[in-house]
Amino acid sequence: MRALVIGRFQPFHKGHVFLVENSREYELIFAIGSAYKSFSFENPFTAGERYEMIYNAMEELSVKKFFVVPVPDINRHGVYAKHLADLSPSFDVVISNNELIKEIFEREGYEVKETGLHKREEYQGKVIRERIAENKEWENLVPRSVAEFIKEIGGDERIRKLVNF
Amino acid sequence: MRALVIGRFQPFHKGHVFLVENSREYELIFAIGSAYKSFSFENPFTAGERYEMIYNAMEELSVKKFFVVPVPDINRHGVYAKHLADLSPSFDVVISNNELIKEIFEREGYEVKETGLHKREEYQGKVIRERIAENKEWENLVPRSVAEFIKEIGGDERIRKLVNF
Amino acid sequence: MRALVIGRFQPFHKGHVFLVENSREYELIFAIGSAYKSFSFENPFTAGERYEMIYNAMEELSVKKFFVVPVPDINRHGVYAKHLADLSPSFDVVISNNELIKEIFEREGYEVKETGLHKREEYQGKVIRERIAENKEWENLVPRSVAEFIKEIGGDERIRKLVNF
Amino acid sequence: MRALVIGRFQPFHKGHVFLVENSREYELIFAIGSAYKSFSFENPFTAGERYEMIYNAMEELSVKKFFVVPVPDINRHGVYAKHLADLSPSFDVVISNNELIKEIFEREGYEVKETGLHKREEYQGKVIRERIAENKEWENLVPRSVAEFIKEIGGDERIRKLVNF
Amino acid sequence: MRALVIGRFQPFHKGHVFLVENSREYELIFAIGSAYKSFSFENPFTAGERYEMIYNAMEELSVKKFFVVPVPDINRHGVYAKHLADLSPSFDVVISNNELIKEIFEREGYEVKETGLHKREEYQGKVIRERIAENKEWENLVPRSVAEFIKEIGGDERIRKLVNF
Amino acid sequence: MRALVIGRFQPFHKGHVFLVENSREYELIFAIGSAYKSFSFENPFTAGERYEMIYNAMEELSVKKFFVVPVPDINRHGVYAKHLADLSPSFDVVISNNELIKEIFEREGYEVKETGLHKREEYQGKVIRERIAENKEWENLVPRSVAEFIKEIGGDERIRKLVNF
Repeated sequence: MRALVIGRFQPFHKGHVFLVENSREYELIFAIGSAYKSFSFENPFTAGERYEMIYNAMEELSVKKFFVVPVPDINRHGVYAKHLADLSPSFDVVISNNELIKEIFEREGYEVKETGLHKREEYQGKVIRERIAENKEWENLVPRSVAEFIKEIGGDERIRKLVNF
Repeated sequence: MRALVIGRFQPFHKGHVFLVENSREYELIFAIGSAYKSFSFENPFTAGERYEMIYNAMEELSVKKFFVVPVPDINRHGVYAKHLADLSPSFDVVISNNELIKEIFEREGYEVKETGLHKREEYQGKVIRERIAENKEWENLVPRSVAEFIKEIGGDERIRKLVNF
Repeated sequence: MRALVIGRFQPFHKGHVFLVENSREYELIFAIGSAYKSFSFENPFTAGERYEMIYNAMEELSVKKFFVVPVPDINRHGVYAKHLADLSPSFDVVISNNELIKEIFEREGYEVKETGLHKREEYQGKVIRERIAENKEWENLVPRSVAEFIKEIGGDERIRKLVNF
Repeated sequence: MRALVIGRFQPFHKGHVFLVENSREYELIFAIGSAYKSFSFENPFTAGERYEMIYNAMEELSVKKFFVVPVPDINRHGVYAKHLADLSPSFDVVISNNELIKEIFEREGYEVKETGLHKREEYQGKVIRERIAENKEWENLVPRSVAEFIKEIGGDERIRKLVNF
Repeated sequence: MRALVIGRFQPFHKGHVFLVENSREYELIFAIGSAYKSFSFENPFTAGERYEMIYNAMEELSVKKFFVVPVPDINRHGVYAKHLADLSPSFDVVISNNELIKEIFEREGYEVKETGLHKREEYQGKVIRERIAENKEWENLVPRSVAEFIKEIGGDERIRKLVNF
Repeated sequence: MRALVIGRFQPFHKGHVFLVENSREYELIFAIGSAYKSFSFENPFTAGERYEMIYNAMEELSVKKFFVVPVPDINRHGVYAKHLADLSPSFDVVISNNELIKEIFEREGYEVKETGLHKREEYQGKVIRERIAENKEWENLVPRSVAEFIKEIGGDERIRKLVNF
């Protein structure tokens, strides 16, 4: 069984790890949303960089079989589910806690499953980007390999520069 | 070292297998070009279907580490290399026999390496689609797992229907 | 004489009815703006659903001759009037109370006529969507056939789900 | 029951009339394909002009209830059916003799019905445009109201000018 | 040596004049950003109007050699530098005080030079548009030829009408 | 009086020089069509490169006052004139021998003037690109400064590489 997980992964963090560990019965497809966005505070990393984060994290977590699909925005909620399905390997279920995702995928006949959100107050992209911007500790909120990758590409410094964009 | 391979993979065939087997020193990134095109004779399969073909073929070939990136056309050759690099994990070299790819990637400072083309008269997407359309044998021109996948999704019948589109 | 009426019709409401009844001398063309937007609180209904609302309301009001044209956004105010005219049956006058519409259509040589706004505090898409979201009575603010259609497609429930999107 | 008819209607001709007369049990939705294309030999008329042709023809044929929806191309066959459904009032069946339309709508679960093509050698947009370009008689191949409309907007002269574009 | 200056020039003002006068050693290329935007309070003037402002100002300042390039947004920061370079005559250096511009052009290997901002509290597009909207004096904040041009095309009145758009 | 000249300028050649010399009573605006296209045999040069060709040629011809505007395609003939006018300084007349340009600008109320075509059999972009591809003499068909620029950027070699694209 394959399950689709949609996120922006700015960056991939331990909330995503929690989801992965609670979905071991599925082969996961990670759909990288807003794939064309990057170099802003909301979306600092390119789709390619986010692809590498996910890839590295799966290696760290010893997940063998998974898929990663960058998905550009089309700004049409009524067609988005089909747009994504067109770019992605086929899937049986969607994993999401987002009411909009639920609405537009259930309408297309997909089953949408919720996972509980884990430590949402800190395992959240926005929180992590803000901590980076404020020079607070953030490395413990993402997988080790992701923290290393972000530093390697100067991603922390990039976020500090783009805090107003 | 990572190497980028750009193709439309309509379908993934033994010419691609030859390339993979002669590039074992690299981690390969397969960029699926014309990702938005499908359901025509020139481009019968969706990007998602082509993703699965590549994935299955890599399993069949026991390739462990590789990346697959669907890349929509932007119809701007002058910006294409950057567009692709934005969506893809980083790479060190491009593998291509195509003069246009060579020109636009070398201009961006990438090294482009040629592979010899192997049995080009039959290991070629167009030839394979034509053989399918004409009900000739084609299964021997693609990896076994790809032939199975195409039949499973009714891809051979699809090609026969779309022969004029 | 034909008159163009531009709106998003999220949903078609009694303010629009007032406009129709005060424009009986014209054949009306309803241009459905932001046609690609749907499934958000600001734009809950697809262009197709809004088309049906208008069609049903015209039947209810016994209007025989009218046109409905879904118009995608192009995000270029300087070209919008021409974009719309390209998609629409020809028209002689534009009916609008909006200063921007007035500016960009007068610049192209069209006559723009204002109608008074009727009971603007309640006959307004945003107000109606908010009342639906808050489970307040809203059916009296739209034509009977529109209220029925919205319920039939589960539009009221949809709005309640999408209140944060 | 509603039936969707997809065409470019360059121009609306007696082949379309034949289809309308053989589909009296349905409310028809005319989807005007390639809505953004105009002013070429292949697509001489704007979507708005084509909308008027259809409207006039329906009046001439005394068809009371029908819908007209201009549909821009998206150049993605895999998503086209959904794109169209998003812009159109809902429909129960698609009427088409085109193998591609059949393939992409059946895949989405729609029933696709064929009509026989009537006098295809002359009731065909391309044939009519060529006859106009060559100053041959063409008026008998379209409804009377359509011939009048084309002349009124100078459409015949336009086609003669654009014969190489 | 050529230097690229990116701005929206809504309108061209004395802050830009200051930059020009402090960059006499360069041939300047003025890249008009957000070229498709116009007829809003944020972007009242079309790219063509902004082109004329710059042209007139250069004549007023007796600058002989310069280039003007309207640049549409692509909403992809990761590809923007390349997009712009594709449309523009080649350049050796970028002049900018903007942290985002700095980040995305330095990443492509360009040198980015800062100029001090001069009287930023008043030499600023937003301030000038607000003064126009409020019927305060603004003419002294732009070159004489620009003030004349704005009045000639009714730009001041346009801004007052579009203050809420 | 300003006159608009639309071309792709692949490359700027002596046919264009002839037009310039026969239009000395106008300030010319050169609209570079298909601005996003480059690196193909049909469109080898980027908009920026074509901008430089025109600029250099005007210097060579001692033309002091002129404008250059790169114009991306929008693939909508019915809206193209407005699209171009939105990006360009205002103009009074269009100079063109092209029937389509004539049709779509006259429809918008512009005067379109023809110039005779001069030595069309050789002063033509396609002919020049073919001569370059075939290593025949071509330098005499373009202004001296344009020939120099093309060689400087390796444009002749580029054309030879892209002859099949």
